[in-house]
Amino acid sequence: MTAPFAFRLIATDGMARRGQITTPHGTVQTPAFMPVGTQGTVKAMFMDDVRATGAEVVLGNVYHLMLRPGAERVAALGGLHRFSTWPHTILTDSGGFQVMSLAQLRKLTEHGVTFQSHIDGSRHELTPERSVEIQGLLGSDIQMQLDECVRLPATPEEVERGMRLSLRWAERSRRRFEDLGGPGKGQGLYGIVQGGDVPHLRVASAEGLRALPFEGYSVGGLAVGEPQAVMLAMLDITTPVLPADKPRYLMGVGTPDDIVESVARGIDQFDCVMPTRAGRHGLAYTRFGKINLKNARHMDDPRPLDEESDCPAARDYSRAYLHHLVRTGEALGAMLLTWVNVAYYQSLMKGIRTAIEEGRYAAFVAETKEGWAKGDLPPL
Amino acid sequence: MTAPFAFRLIATDGMARRGQITTPHGTVQTPAFMPVGTQGTVKAMFMDDVRATGAEVVLGNVYHLMLRPGAERVAALGGLHRFSTWPHTILTDSGGFQVMSLAQLRKLTEHGVTFQSHIDGSRHELTPERSVEIQGLLGSDIQMQLDECVRLPATPEEVERGMRLSLRWAERSRRRFEDLGGPGKGQGLYGIVQGGDVPHLRVASAEGLRALPFEGYSVGGLAVGEPQAVMLAMLDITTPVLPADKPRYLMGVGTPDDIVESVARGIDQFDCVMPTRAGRHGLAYTRFGKINLKNARHMDDPRPLDEESDCPAARDYSRAYLHHLVRTGEALGAMLLTWVNVAYYQSLMKGIRTAIEEGRYAAFVAETKEGWAKGDLPPL
Repeated sequence: MTAPFAFRLIATDGMARRGQITTPHGTVQTPAFMPVGTQGTVKAMFMDDVRATGAEVVLGNVYHLMLRPGAERVAALGGLHRFSTWPHTILTDSGGFQVMSLAQLRKLTEHGVTFQSHIDGSRHELTPERSVEIQGLLGSDIQMQLDECVRLPATPEEVERGMRLSLRWAERSRRRFEDLGGPGKGQGLYGIVQGGDVPHLRVASAEGLRALPFEGYSVGGLAVGEPQAVMLAMLDITTPVLPADKPRYLMGVGTPDDIVESVARGIDQFDCVMPTRAGRHGLAYTRFGKINLKNARHMDDPRPLDEESDCPAARDYSRAYLHHLVRTGEALGAMLLTWVNVAYYQSLMKGIRTAIEEGRYAAFVAETKEGWAKGDLPPL
Repeated sequence: MTAPFAFRLIATDGMARRGQITTPHGTVQTPAFMPVGTQGTVKAMFMDDVRATGAEVVLGNVYHLMLRPGAERVAALGGLHRFSTWPHTILTDSGGFQVMSLAQLRKLTEHGVTFQSHIDGSRHELTPERSVEIQGLLGSDIQMQLDECVRLPATPEEVERGMRLSLRWAERSRRRFEDLGGPGKGQGLYGIVQGGDVPHLRVASAEGLRALPFEGYSVGGLAVGEPQAVMLAMLDITTPVLPADKPRYLMGVGTPDDIVESVARGIDQFDCVMPTRAGRHGLAYTRFGKINLKNARHMDDPRPLDEESDCPAARDYSRAYLHHLVRTGEALGAMLLTWVNVAYYQSLMKGIRTAIEEGRYAAFVAETKEGWAKGDLPPL
């Protein structure tokens, strides 16, 4: 018998929470950052190295995986954990966000959404039920309901329509998840708060969702281009409405600064393509802030990005070499900088967790921001 | 005081030789395959993994490195070993081959060759002296004379002209190498046999070079499109003319079959982009022959490429996953397949070395070719 999905609150500091999620594939210390493994791979990294940075959960994208290699195929191959050689916790999204941003000829109805694949034009349907089925076939430990993320700017009426639809889809998702035996397998399904930038709709969404027995609650529809202040204001009014004994996941966020601010508002989980994507574009996230390795200032610099880092990629390679790799377009440049960034995000989360435990989260945030503001090492 | 560059012959089996090269950065067991690290990186691999496959020497390309990051810059950063995080033996070419294949507006004279960079159009000059200087700045352990590789088909007169020029450049290269103190640093300089597909010119080239005190002898101008039989015929007449107590390096070769056949003709060192380039194109070299992971037959196959391999990339990932990575263009596909290929080439060399030691080289070649001919595992 599998232990049920569990969340335990270990400590709090203001609104910031230090917790632990237990899934069939391990424990996840929170606040946690989840590297994005869209197609069953965290781009340009070996899974062993992802794990060694401290990551305990990676994210898979239903939209991509349902198209290639296909959910039934992954299931026949033993599930996404085995397929992608990641035996630890996996969280999947519902596919809805990518359908709206990547697919063609979308048609949204009460029933669900039909669309054409951006790869080969093939037609597919995603409903709340099918999304949960796919996530079950993948063997995902932490699953998301299908929702509609209304693109901003939008009228309050349009935002409310999408939020209400998402609430109805939440109920259908939950029913299917239980029919498939998700709770008995120790898996979790999260409801997703929508409501755009309209405070009372955010509250109504969160209240509607907390009436359902979700294992966790996501906040969706933020970090989609709005100012950070708007995102944080939405969190300020949303997290107090969510159950204190369930994890809270802010989807698609974000910069290191977004993360520390959102933790201060009670968020426990994050994912974002930023560290991996930036690594493929010559950018490094460090305690000195963001460093552009394309910049000529690094050309003759024998120093590593951060000699005090635990990450070999940040510690054992000169800036001159990283600059050379980025300028020549060598794969190793993307491999090393992705590793640097995933490792930095994980070290940031570790610092956040320790600070909350020690009741000094505000001081930690101030110190961390000071480091970023101070900027990179002076030239030699 | 640095020990001199040394070559020791350990065993022979027919014309096949088992030896050991000692350089300032380690020993190299021969016959050896040298992965290509054109721009200071073996594409899509970490140097630690390159080393773990058994590689003891990697190749750097003077043409690329003189343009980016520049030889003087590499020297100021502590040399190519430190720059590229490869503390073991490094062999460099002279730059001549890439000048002829990549650069623009080339002008060849007795003095040397001027050309325009294929990257930014900047003008550069490479002479026998400058090539050796650059290789010294890089800190290369095994250096090559500048030569002219006449493109085939060519008239015997044209082939002879290039071969004679290469002999005169050999003398100039040697003089500069000694003036720079290369021998005292334990470095080696190899002369390069030219002569196209004209037997008596190959012999004349080898005889001319053996009059000079090179630490080793390369065979150039082969594997440039001619049939394998022509290449092997040239080796048959060339290697007997070369000193038995010096290593012999067949430049730019080749397929696994080329390698076993060339070892049988007395070659000790090889380099080729094939394993690394093939890895970026979805192709795996294995004991079952060449496997195309793009092929749909692998789509549902849970088996690894070779469950008996020592290489994690060949042993721990399903063909279905590799197929998925290749089809989706994920960097991890190139990373894993490059690793597979470099590891297979190294395991082949290890098998070759053991077989020569045991006096069963012919049997080893027959068994190995049988494995390739038998082909891949049958479908499940």
